[in-house]
Amino acid sequence: MQPNRYEQGLAKLREIDGEAGQRVVDCLADIAPDFARYLIEFPFGDIYSRPGLDLKSHKIAVVAALTALGNAAPQLQVHIQGALNVGVTQGEIVEVIMQMAVYAGFPAALNGLSTAREVFAAVASMQSAAAVERA
Amino acid sequence: MQPNRYEQGLAKLREIDGEAGQRVVDCLADIAPDFARYLIEFPFGDIYSRPGLDLKSHKIAVVAALTALGNAAPQLQVHIQGALNVGVTQGEIVEVIMQMAVYAGFPAALNGLSTAREVFAAVASMQSAAAVERA
Amino acid sequence: MQPNRYEQGLAKLREIDGEAGQRVVDCLADIAPDFARYLIEFPFGDIYSRPGLDLKSHKIAVVAALTALGNAAPQLQVHIQGALNVGVTQGEIVEVIMQMAVYAGFPAALNGLSTAREVFAAVASMQSAAAVERA
Amino acid sequence: MQPNRYEQGLAKLREIDGEAGQRVVDCLADIAPDFARYLIEFPFGDIYSRPGLDLKSHKIAVVAALTALGNAAPQLQVHIQGALNVGVTQGEIVEVIMQMAVYAGFPAALNGLSTAREVFAAVASMQSAAAVERA
Amino acid sequence: MQPNRYEQGLAKLREIDGEAGQRVVDCLADIAPDFARYLIEFPFGDIYSRPGLDLKSHKIAVVAALTALGNAAPQLQVHIQGALNVGVTQGEIVEVIMQMAVYAGFPAALNGLSTAREVFAAVASMQSAAAVERA
Amino acid sequence: MQPNRYEQGLAKLREIDGEAGQRVVDCLADIAPDFARYLIEFPFGDIYSRPGLDLKSHKIAVVAALTALGNAAPQLQVHIQGALNVGVTQGEIVEVIMQMAVYAGFPAALNGLSTAREVFAAVASMQSAAAVERA
Repeated sequence: MQPNRYEQGLAKLREIDGEAGQRVVDCLADIAPDFARYLIEFPFGDIYSRPGLDLKSHKIAVVAALTALGNAAPQLQVHIQGALNVGVTQGEIVEVIMQMAVYAGFPAALNGLSTAREVFAAVASMQSAAAVERA
Repeated sequence: MQPNRYEQGLAKLREIDGEAGQRVVDCLADIAPDFARYLIEFPFGDIYSRPGLDLKSHKIAVVAALTALGNAAPQLQVHIQGALNVGVTQGEIVEVIMQMAVYAGFPAALNGLSTAREVFAAVASMQSAAAVERA
Repeated sequence: MQPNRYEQGLAKLREIDGEAGQRVVDCLADIAPDFARYLIEFPFGDIYSRPGLDLKSHKIAVVAALTALGNAAPQLQVHIQGALNVGVTQGEIVEVIMQMAVYAGFPAALNGLSTAREVFAAVASMQSAAAVERA
Repeated sequence: MQPNRYEQGLAKLREIDGEAGQRVVDCLADIAPDFARYLIEFPFGDIYSRPGLDLKSHKIAVVAALTALGNAAPQLQVHIQGALNVGVTQGEIVEVIMQMAVYAGFPAALNGLSTAREVFAAVASMQSAAAVERA
Repeated sequence: MQPNRYEQGLAKLREIDGEAGQRVVDCLADIAPDFARYLIEFPFGDIYSRPGLDLKSHKIAVVAALTALGNAAPQLQVHIQGALNVGVTQGEIVEVIMQMAVYAGFPAALNGLSTAREVFAAVASMQSAAAVERA
Repeated sequence: MQPNRYEQGLAKLREIDGEAGQRVVDCLADIAPDFARYLIEFPFGDIYSRPGLDLKSHKIAVVAALTALGNAAPQLQVHIQGALNVGVTQGEIVEVIMQMAVYAGFPAALNGLSTAREVFAAVASMQSAAAVERA
C-alpha cells in the first residue's frame, strides 16, 4: 500500500508555494478537481518529497526551466515566489534568469526578468504594508 | 576599457566543461570562428564568471533548462558532464531531470535521462580504463 | 482543375468554428486578406474536408496540440469552442487537456484548463441570456 | 487509502503500449527506477485509467501533441504503435499527423510522417515474418 | 584589447530600435543593470555590428524567428518596429510573418500578424499626430 | 476558378530546393501522397509564388526560423541548400544562424551551424567530384 501522497503533497505545497499554491488548487475545484489532486500528489507528494535534492536546488531548476520554455508566465510567478519562500535570494533568482539568455535566448530572459520584477514588487509592497501595520 | 573576457572565459570553459567544451570550440574553427569567440566571451567570460551564483547552481539550472527545451541533446550531454565536473552528483542530476517531467512532460524527462545514462556510462568506462592502467 | 476550395473551406469554417472563426477571418481583412483566404482554403478547404477522420477526432487532436504547444491561447479558445460545436463534451475536453500534463507538463495543462474555463463560462452565460430571452 | 495505482497502471501500460512500453520501463531500471514507477503510476495508473475518454481519443490526442511538439521522436514511435494497438487505423494516424501541419507547421508534420512510416514498416515486417512462420 | 563594444552597441541599438530599444534597457536598470549592459554589448555591439549581413536581412531573420517561436510578443513588437526603422516595408513584414504559417503553423502566423497590426496602428497614429502638429 | 497551384508550386519547388525538395515529395508517395500535393500547393504554389518578398529574403527567414525552433534538422538542411541555390552566400547563412544565439540561445545556433557545416561539406564534395570529371 502507498504512503498518503495527498497529505504529504499538500503539506509540501503549503511549505513551498504558500497561498499562491493554494490558489492554483482552488481554481481547479470547479473544472477539474481530480487534476488538483494529481497536482498535489505527483509534483508535491512524489517529486518534491524526495530526499535527493534540496528545495533550493529544486526551485532553481524550475525557475530556469520555466524561463527557458517561456510559455508559462503564471507558473513562473508562483515558482519565483516559492523560490523566495525556501530561501533563494532575489539576487540568485536574477542570476538564474539572466543565465537563460545563453540557453534560450535574450527574449526568454527578458520576459523572465519582467515576471521576477512583478513578484519582487509585490513582496516589497506586502512588506511595507506589514511595516505600517506594526508601527 | 573592458577586462579580458576572452582569457577569463577560456579559463572558465576549461574549468567547467573540460575537453568537451574545447571540442565545441574546435568544431567552430572552420565555419564560424567568431562564434567560438562569442561563446567563450559571453556565456563563460560574462555569465559564468559572475560571483552571484555558485557553479553547482549554474549547472543545475542549465541541465534543467536543456532537458525542458528538449531540442539540444548534444549540449545537454556537455552540460551533464560539466555538472559532474563541478561537483553535482549523478544522483542530483537524475533528480533534476526527473523533476522536469512535471514542468515539460514525461518525454522530455525520459530523453534527458537517456542522455544522462550515456554520459554516466562514458564516465564509468573512462574510470575503469584508468584503473586498469594504474594496476 | 481543382474543386472550389474556398467555398468548401468557408462552409467548413462556419460549420465548425461558427462566429469565432468568422471573426478571425475578419481580423485579417485589413492587414493580410490573402492570408484569410489561405486559412479558409488550406486548413478548412483541404484538411478539415478530408473524409478520413471524423470532426470530433480532428478537434480532439487540435485541442491536444495547442494545449501542448502552450503559445497560442487565442487559437485554443476558438478550437475549444469549435470542439463543443461538433459534439465533444466539456468533460472530454477537460480529459484531453489534463492528459497533456503527461506529455507537455503541468503548466501547459493548467493554462489549457484556464482557457477552457473561460470558454465554458462564456457558453454558460450565453445560455442563461438565451433562457431569459425565451422566458 | 489509495487504490493500487501501480498494478492498475502496469496493466494499462501492457494493454496499450505492449512490449514497447515495457522496454521504456526496463531502460529506467538502472538509472531512475523510481521514475519507472512514477511513469506507470501517474500517466497509466491515474490518467489512462480514467473513464471519461475512450482509449482511441487518448491516443489521437497524444499522437497529435507529440507531432506538434516535435522533440520527442522515440516517444512518438511508442505512441503510434500504441495507437495501432487500441484500434486507431494507419489511415487515421496519417490524418492526425497531416493535420498538425496547420497547427505546428509542415516540418513537424513531415517528421511525424517519417516516424509513422518507420512504425508501419516494422509492423508490416513483423506481420510477414509471422505469415511465413504460419505457412 | 577589445573595441568598445558598449558604445558601439548603444549606437546600434539607437539606430535600429530607437526609443523602444532604450525603454527595454531602462526597464532593466533596477532589477538587472548588468543584463542591460550584456544586451547592448552582445546582440548590438557584437552581432548587429558585423558587416556580413545587411540590417534589413537581420531584421527579416529576427521577425521570422520570433514569430515562429511564438512566445515573445513584446520582443516581436520591438523588432517589427525596428524592421520598419531600417527600411523593411509593412508589406514585406506581412509576407515574412505569413510565411511562418508553413514552418511553425497558422496560430504562430496569426499571432504574429496580430502583433504587426498593433505596431502598424501605432505608427499610423503617430504619423497623423505629427501631421496635425505640422498643420 | 483557381490558378493551377500544383504546376506553379512544382516549378517553384524545383527552382528553389532542387533535388532535395523532390526527394521530400517522393518520400511521401507511399504514406501520404495528398500531403505531398499540399506541400507543393500551399508553401510553394501559394506562399513562395507571391511577388511581395524576394527569394533570398524568403530563405533567410526560413533558415532563421528553423534554426530558432531547433527541432527540424532535416528541413533546415534542405532549406540551407535551397538558400544557396537562390544566391544566399555561405557567409550570409552563417551570419543568420549565429544571430539566432541572441533570440533562441547558443545551443540552437550551435546545432544550426552544425547542420550548415554538413551542407557546405556536401556542396564542396560535389564540386570537387565535378571538377575531377571535367579534368
